[in-house]
Amino acid sequence: MRAEIISVGTELLLGDIVNTNAQFLAKELAAVGIDVYHQTVVGDNEERMLKAFSDAFENCDLIVATGGLGPTPDDLTKETAAKFFGQELVVHEESWKSIEAYFNKNGRAMEGSNAKQAYFPKDAVVLPNPNGTAPGAVLKKDNKMIVVLPGPPKEMKPMFMNHVIPYLKQYTDTVLVSKVLRIFGIGEGFMAEEIADIINGQTNPTVAPYAKEIDVTLRITAKAKDEEEAKNLIKPVEDKIREKLGDNIYGEGETTLEHVVAELLVRNKLTIATAESCTGGLVAANLINYPGISEVFLEGAVTYSNESKMKRLGVKEETLDKYGAVSEETAREMAEGIAKAAGTKVGISTTGIAGPGGGTDDKPVGLVYMGIYIDGNTLVRKFNFQGSREKVRQRAMMNALDWLRRELLNRNYV
Amino acid sequence: MRAEIISVGTELLLGDIVNTNAQFLAKELAAVGIDVYHQTVVGDNEERMLKAFSDAFENCDLIVATGGLGPTPDDLTKETAAKFFGQELVVHEESWKSIEAYFNKNGRAMEGSNAKQAYFPKDAVVLPNPNGTAPGAVLKKDNKMIVVLPGPPKEMKPMFMNHVIPYLKQYTDTVLVSKVLRIFGIGEGFMAEEIADIINGQTNPTVAPYAKEIDVTLRITAKAKDEEEAKNLIKPVEDKIREKLGDNIYGEGETTLEHVVAELLVRNKLTIATAESCTGGLVAANLINYPGISEVFLEGAVTYSNESKMKRLGVKEETLDKYGAVSEETAREMAEGIAKAAGTKVGISTTGIAGPGGGTDDKPVGLVYMGIYIDGNTLVRKFNFQGSREKVRQRAMMNALDWLRRELLNRNYV
Repeated sequence: MRAEIISVGTELLLGDIVNTNAQFLAKELAAVGIDVYHQTVVGDNEERMLKAFSDAFENCDLIVATGGLGPTPDDLTKETAAKFFGQELVVHEESWKSIEAYFNKNGRAMEGSNAKQAYFPKDAVVLPNPNGTAPGAVLKKDNKMIVVLPGPPKEMKPMFMNHVIPYLKQYTDTVLVSKVLRIFGIGEGFMAEEIADIINGQTNPTVAPYAKEIDVTLRITAKAKDEEEAKNLIKPVEDKIREKLGDNIYGEGETTLEHVVAELLVRNKLTIATAESCTGGLVAANLINYPGISEVFLEGAVTYSNESKMKRLGVKEETLDKYGAVSEETAREMAEGIAKAAGTKVGISTTGIAGPGGGTDDKPVGLVYMGIYIDGNTLVRKFNFQGSREKVRQRAMMNALDWLRRELLNRNYV
Repeated sequence: MRAEIISVGTELLLGDIVNTNAQFLAKELAAVGIDVYHQTVVGDNEERMLKAFSDAFENCDLIVATGGLGPTPDDLTKETAAKFFGQELVVHEESWKSIEAYFNKNGRAMEGSNAKQAYFPKDAVVLPNPNGTAPGAVLKKDNKMIVVLPGPPKEMKPMFMNHVIPYLKQYTDTVLVSKVLRIFGIGEGFMAEEIADIINGQTNPTVAPYAKEIDVTLRITAKAKDEEEAKNLIKPVEDKIREKLGDNIYGEGETTLEHVVAELLVRNKLTIATAESCTGGLVAANLINYPGISEVFLEGAVTYSNESKMKRLGVKEETLDKYGAVSEETAREMAEGIAKAAGTKVGISTTGIAGPGGGTDDKPVGLVYMGIYIDGNTLVRKFNFQGSREKVRQRAMMNALDWLRRELLNRNYV
């Protein structure tokens, strides 16, 4: 099966946004053995879209189109696909109801313009959208297929993975099974060297590293006739990788670092409180992403001013005067202070210079001290991060969580 | 003049990399008034590239192709463009010398495979590449033009800006100027209805709405002979839109909601403290994105447990017993409590049920109360949000910031 990816949107043609959807789709289609020979971007324009569809079907049997499913008259992808196949749009009851429910839940009336999102060709497979109002669809005629998906990645990606991939599997006879290992605390380059022999020696499964925003993932992909055979190919390779990378691997699949840390805390009934300066609530906010965290997360303090560090956390005035707010000593007193104030087993603190201003020769932008109070002891570490204010804060948050994870594992909390 | 962007590379088709080149080129071409109606990605394959060139020239006079100028036999973009125009490649002395110099500078001998990078059609305009070995070129035949550029953004972007744009200016006499308005608190559909007459009645400038992750943007784009004329076309349309949408417009261009709120607070020297339950530090973390926020942001509390709400914020036990932690009354006492504890002019609070568990008929998942203490008064609002735990928390945070923004504007803080 051959596919073409057609991304619809004037904002892409004008260069307002980067086409990350095409990359995602290309990768996931390749993973189920569907070849993509061509990708196209076209504006919200019926004539040009019809031409793109007809050009694409000269070389492929499947078009995956994203964008142009919104409520405005500009949004014409579904309508144009139906027109291309000569199919009429009729109301799809289930979609109508779920769009209505979406608005009711938000305390608003369903708007007229949103009604058009509930219309589909009679024989289309409608794909539900739990993350927005625009359902997607698979339109078919003879042996040609157009999949229309919403443009926003948060709506498109889960719809594609949960509905389109399972649907397309009937058209391919090999399965590609991937396992993703998530890695933190070791750069992509260094990791690639560490496991170079494993990466280079493998053809099935293949092993591919990807550098993400902050962490790194390794994808092990096996091609086989069924899932079990694929998993059996993956297992020994994964074991070899785990032996090399150890605790640098923090999780698998779509898990996140905060999820892993929160789970460790909840499973071991370790109550925790946070005291943040430069990360300004990011550590707390990320831990609290984990449902069920309320069992152990008692309190967080964003102590941005010196006064709040003293008043809330009991940091001593002498400490601030002598060593400054960004210092090992302050980080230590912050971690101890929040654990004591909140009555928790674990306390974690951050204090640093996120920039862009405020740096000196002694204490440059990117300098961050962190403290962890655990089992009656306090540990302090110094970090130097690179990048913008946002990057420094993000990296500090991730490193705080990762350090806590490693300390928990070292203490045999599992 | 109309252009098509053709990105060449198997790594794009496999989804290994994101096509940021296309976005860059689209934006820069639009800025000099060259319309891009189509973008294409094609593999390193002569036949498919020839087809892409011939398809493109059905609708445009200019192809900008990136990638495939490297030294390996896989790299065929320049060769294919020359073949398409029926032009022979001959050695270009200057390029030969500069490639040789590049290798000498790096202490290496010029490799045979790099020699092919010095070959161009006799009449091509060769574009020097100070950042790599592959020069680019403008190939012409009759009134058609193919610009070939290297794939690595670090080589492509300066080459495009320094050589291609000045070269293309002789062919265009218009500029495109865009202005983006950022909107929150009104859905895309509802907004589109509100300003339907403006959107539909306009051809120059055009007005286009885009739904972003949480907020909405409106782009006003004018075509004119120079920037000033374009701005004069935009102004009256912008005024009409502002009249209709009022305070729903929170900013322009690349600004963010937290940036706008933080700026208002700093400009008016309004000290602020946050008390968060369900948003768990997100409000603080986003405000703290703004450099300079330390002048006014004194303290944040993430009071997840009832005990911390009482101890840190002075929420009364009776209030929690009688109305619960998720209630108007608790939100009120939280906002007042944090402002009092931190000694700030403004206090803002959130308390709600982010889910997925914890909802009841009375208090369903997504129910969030917020409080704002300002000028000695406390306001409370109730919200119902949709979506996952993450979405509910994200929406709560954005709505808290937006509500604060509106309250500040209503009180004539500007």
